[in-house]
Order: sequence, then structure tokens, then C-alpha cells
Amino acid sequence: MMDLISPTYIINEKIARNNIRRMAAKAAENQALFRPHFKTHQSRLIGRWFKEEGVTAITVSSLSMADYFASDGWNDITVAFPVNLHEINLINRLSGCIRLGLTIEDLNTVKQLDQLLTSRVDLYIKIDSGYHRTGLEPADRDEIVAIVVAARGSRNLNFKGLIAHSGHTYQARTIGEVYTIAALSLECMKMIKSWIPDSDRCLISIGDTPSCSLLDDFGGVDEIRPGNFVFYDLMQMQIGSCQFEQVAGVVACPVVAVHSHRNQAVIFGGAVHLSKDRLEVAGQTVFGQLVEWTGLGWGKPIPESYLVSLSQEHGILEAPSAVIRKLIPGSWIGILPVHSCLTANLLRGYRTLDGVDLDHLSGF
Amino acid sequence: MMDLISPTYIINEKIARNNIRRMAAKAAENQALFRPHFKTHQSRLIGRWFKEEGVTAITVSSLSMADYFASDGWNDITVAFPVNLHEINLINRLSGCIRLGLTIEDLNTVKQLDQLLTSRVDLYIKIDSGYHRTGLEPADRDEIVAIVVAARGSRNLNFKGLIAHSGHTYQARTIGEVYTIAALSLECMKMIKSWIPDSDRCLISIGDTPSCSLLDDFGGVDEIRPGNFVFYDLMQMQIGSCQFEQVAGVVACPVVAVHSHRNQAVIFGGAVHLSKDRLEVAGQTVFGQLVEWTGLGWGKPIPESYLVSLSQEHGILEAPSAVIRKLIPGSWIGILPVHSCLTANLLRGYRTLDGVDLDHLSGF
Repeated sequence: MMDLISPTYIINEKIARNNIRRMAAKAAENQALFRPHFKTHQSRLIGRWFKEEGVTAITVSSLSMADYFASDGWNDITVAFPVNLHEINLINRLSGCIRLGLTIEDLNTVKQLDQLLTSRVDLYIKIDSGYHRTGLEPADRDEIVAIVVAARGSRNLNFKGLIAHSGHTYQARTIGEVYTIAALSLECMKMIKSWIPDSDRCLISIGDTPSCSLLDDFGGVDEIRPGNFVFYDLMQMQIGSCQFEQVAGVVACPVVAVHSHRNQAVIFGGAVHLSKDRLEVAGQTVFGQLVEWTGLGWGKPIPESYLVSLSQEHGILEAPSAVIRKLIPGSWIGILPVHSCLTANLLRGYRTLDGVDLDHLSGF
Repeated sequence: MMDLISPTYIINEKIARNNIRRMAAKAAENQALFRPHFKTHQSRLIGRWFKEEGVTAITVSSLSMADYFASDGWNDITVAFPVNLHEINLINRLSGCIRLGLTIEDLNTVKQLDQLLTSRVDLYIKIDSGYHRTGLEPADRDEIVAIVVAARGSRNLNFKGLIAHSGHTYQARTIGEVYTIAALSLECMKMIKSWIPDSDRCLISIGDTPSCSLLDDFGGVDEIRPGNFVFYDLMQMQIGSCQFEQVAGVVACPVVAVHSHRNQAVIFGGAVHLSKDRLEVAGQTVFGQLVEWTGLGWGKPIPESYLVSLSQEHGILEAPSAVIRKLIPGSWIGILPVHSCLTANLLRGYRTLDGVDLDHLSGF
């Protein structure tokens, strides 16, 4: 037994390291820089597993996360989130110590950065390659070129290239859809790159876990930034980005009540542990799937056994009566989370199958 | 200006104190004990606002939360979540220092508690009065009576009464529905109480914010445990539990990108700040509503202006073009959150309109 007390994110270190190794090898085969996104694990100790695979450059989603990893010796960090100029003091402190990459998508912010920066930073232009969350589009050709020109004329800006996140692959439910999105996204990036003066000095960076997991050939891509792949999760299984055997983390939760007459059990494991990220499975909204749990680790997913509702601390497990009948208050169960990034952000720490506790930023 | 840097939960202390005062007065008029749920704010400093209104007993949703408030001098704390016996060491430590209330719903757990407890605790039986999340039902009459008998025969258990949470009022969208649920729930509790030997020594405790906000007469109820009412939120406005003027908290977020052509802006404010709790508004799924923001506080909600999508750090605001046109990267906006409890849990701290920073447990 692992001497668990409350909901705990259990990590199979071997699987996670294999996930890292495979992605690093794929980047190398494509002569692309592997700049993994650390917003999924947010852990210095897990970060070192990447370092051992030769990773030297990383991606984060906030400046506080950059600060956290900079303090553990990472010195080439890109923040893949549009610059928030209210954080200029932290930007200047970090860029004085490490190679910091920033993401922008409007000329005015570039001009302000030029005025406010006290050290040199790498600058990426965020491109909307089809996800329509954020970024400049092909229709913004003039602004894109103007930004490159302005950045290249600035003392403290080093124009690096174009950055995209094809997050719409998360809505894909077949491998074919992921390939289609990846192909169209890359075409978009290449077209925009061709408009840029001296385009040899403009890299293309892509990021989503489904594309990076499924494609073997990243022709034309200079940098990949997947994050979610380190643990994978139920959503990535549903998309087809991974097999169950590649899922590196399961949340162990104690049962606190059993309601056999409605084939349900209540677990200590709610929205403050798992997040309210959801999936549709066979027409039902689910918040996680039950896996076999031995007390020393997890086994297979159990069919038709899902978290069907979450409140602040309660999770409601619904499963066939043969499954529910084996549970009593005090039993431990394993939950395969829908979205490992948000679950890790909430649980703020991990335990490996070997019983080692791993750190987490615990912040944003 | 408030010198904000990143997403911040801004609290109007006067409104929050009025919410507390009104609920305390209502409990007093009904001769019911006001045992507010502190899982919403999870803050020692906000807890003291309750103390100043005469509150001496509180509710929490986890033992770590009980521990946090015990360390600030609260000495009558009920954990309104089914006992997780894996936490027995913390239970025994706390019950040695304060008056600790535990919630159970099965005889076996009562027998185990009898063996494991080293100090006396108050014991509530969790009743499912219609929500069907957790608790014993009227059909479990024999087990309910057996639990009372076992508890009364135990050295360290003080049988206190019946506890229910009519969480299905959160699905109500008219005041009439809330009244109906509250009435049926109370009837259920009274019936079960009538079965208990020496029933004068069995209290009835209810808890949901919609019922506690809307009802004036709690006839038969001995204790009320609302939590959400201290801040209220968009969901409570939609249910009809409160008016906008009673909402005590808004999340200030910086705009980081503007996409006028699709009437959208991107804010630094995502699932790790606001939670993925959602509401249906006019057939659309929303994650928060825009309010006027002056830099010193907030004004009215802005019609047809909602967060329509959240990812880890990004929030997508969709609003009429006249609203979006006023925004630039760097602008601050106010977001009325869907569910104040989960938002507070994620933001882990507050700032009052007077610029005072308030603590948060930052845990579970």
C-alpha cells in the first residue's frame, strides 16, 4: 500500500519517461527543436526527466511559471501566451537572467515592449492557423510584416518566428481529422512565413499534443511544443493521440459512500481535484473513468464506469452493479482524468508508483 | 487604480458583510443556529467578518479546512462531507483541541469510528432529502435508527442530528422551484426525525444557499449552513437567490488580444482562474459575464457580453462590437464568475476595493 490519505495524482515514472523519450526522438528525426510545454506537469523534478533526455529549451504558459523553472536552472524559456504588459517588471527581471521568449500579436504591443524592455528577449508572432482562439490570420499580412520590421529594428527584440497552437485538434475524434488540421495549419504557417522579408531567419513553431503525437513527418516545422503528452489522459485516448498503455497518471481517490441501489458510489475527489473538464462518451457527459486499482498501481480501464457528476469535493461514480458491489467506504479507486493539465494544476503534486513525492508550482 | 498585475478576485467588503449580517439575522429570527459554510471563501480574514456578526460555529468541507480555521481560533467546526477514515490521525488531533462534527451515512463507519476515535466528536447522519448525491434515504429507516443507537452507545460519539444539502436547488431557475424543493426536503427530514428514539435530542441541519436566501420561515430547522451567499455569483443570480447588487466579488482580468472582426477579446483569465463551471444563458454556454470596470471597482453587468470559452489561461470574451471596440491589450475588465466557490478555490486570495489583500487556505 502507498499510505495514501486523500486524492493523489499517481505517476508511472517509466511511462512518463518513455513518452518524453519518444517525443524527443521524433523531434530529432525531424531536425526540429523539442521545446516541451511544462504547463502540464508544472514540476521541477519532472522537468529534470526532460533534461536527462537532452531537452534544453522549454515552453510555459505564464511568467510565474517561467520564474519557477528559471530558478531550477532552465535558461531558454518561451512564454506561449500573449504578453500581459502589466507584468513588465517580471519580464525585465527574467530577461536579465535567462533567454526569455515572448509571444505577441499586435504592433502596438511590440512598440510598447521596445520602450519598456531593459534586456533582450526573443519575440514570436502568434498565428491563428485555424483554431480561432488567438493570433493573427493570413488576412493580417500587413500587420504581420510590420511587426517583423518593427521587431528587427528594436534594440531589445530578437524576432524569432511564428508560433501556432492548433487547439482544434482537441475537438477531433478521429486520427484523420488530426492529420487534416495539422496539414492545413502547417500550410497556413508556411504561406505566412513566405511573406516575411528574409524568411530564412523566421522559424515555425507548432504545439498541440494530438498533432505531435500522431504525425511522423513535421516537414517545415522548426520547433515543437507539446505538453499534455507527458501524462496523456482520457481525452487524448478518445482523440486517438495515445493508447491507454501510454497514460502515465491516474488519480487515486477514497470511496466515502456507496449507493448500490442506484449503481453509484461517492468518492472524495471533486471539482477541486479533477477540474470540471468533461467528455462525451456514448452520449453521456463524463469527468473521468474508473481503472482497476491494486493499492500498488493501476490496471485496465473498467468499461461503463465513469464519474458522471462533480461538485466541490464530491465525485459520483456510476458503474455496473458488479463493480459497485465490490466497493465500501474506505476503498481506494483509480480515476483516469479527462484532462491531465487541469488535474495536475489542481492536485499540486504527485506521487510516483515508487512512493516518491514530486513538487508542483501550485500557481499559475 | 489598484495596481493589479494578473487575474484578481476583487471583493466589496461592505456587500459581503451585509450578506453575512442579513443571513445571521434571518437565522436568529428563526431561532436556528447559523453555522455558515466556509468552503466558499476559505479565508481566515473573511472568517473574522462572520465572527464580528456573532458567529461561533462553522461548517467546512474537508479536514484540512477544519485544521486551517481551528488554527485561527474557531472551536466548533462541522465537516459536512462523509468521513474518510484514512484521515483518522487528523480527526483525532483536531477533536482533541476543538469541538469537531463529523458526517456519516453508514453503520459500519460508525462502528469503526467508535474503535478509532481518541476524543469525543459530534456525529451527524447525512440524509438524502432529494438531491440524490449522497446520504441515507427514508427507505433506510432501519439503518438510520441503528446508527443513532450505536452512536448513543459509543463513548466518543455524540449523536447530534440529521444533516442535508438540497443541492438540487442549484438546478432550479425559478423561485417557486426553490420553495418546492425546500418544502419537500424539510418534510423528509421531519419524517425521519420522528422515527428517531428520543427525537427531541436530534437536530435538523440544512444548507443550500438558494433555500437559505429565499425562505423567510425555517420552521423546524435547528441549524443553517449556507456558504455561497457570502459572495453570490452569476449562477445564484440566475436561480433568483440574489440580486446583482448583492454580488460581492468580481474577477479583474487583463485583456491580452482583441479580435474585433469576430467581436471577441482574449483575456488572461482561464480555467485555472475561473474554473470550468458553466451556465446556459439564452441557449449559449457561458463561463462568466462582463461587468463595467472603472479601475476602482465594478459597475453594472454588460448585456450579451460573456466568456464563451476557457482554456488553461485563456478566456474568450464575446460581446457586441461597441463593447469590444473599447478594449485594447492591457485594458482591465471585470468578470462576474459563474460559481464563486470554485473561482475562490482557484484564485487563492482576494483584494478588497480598499486594496487590502486577504488570505486563502489554498488547499482542499
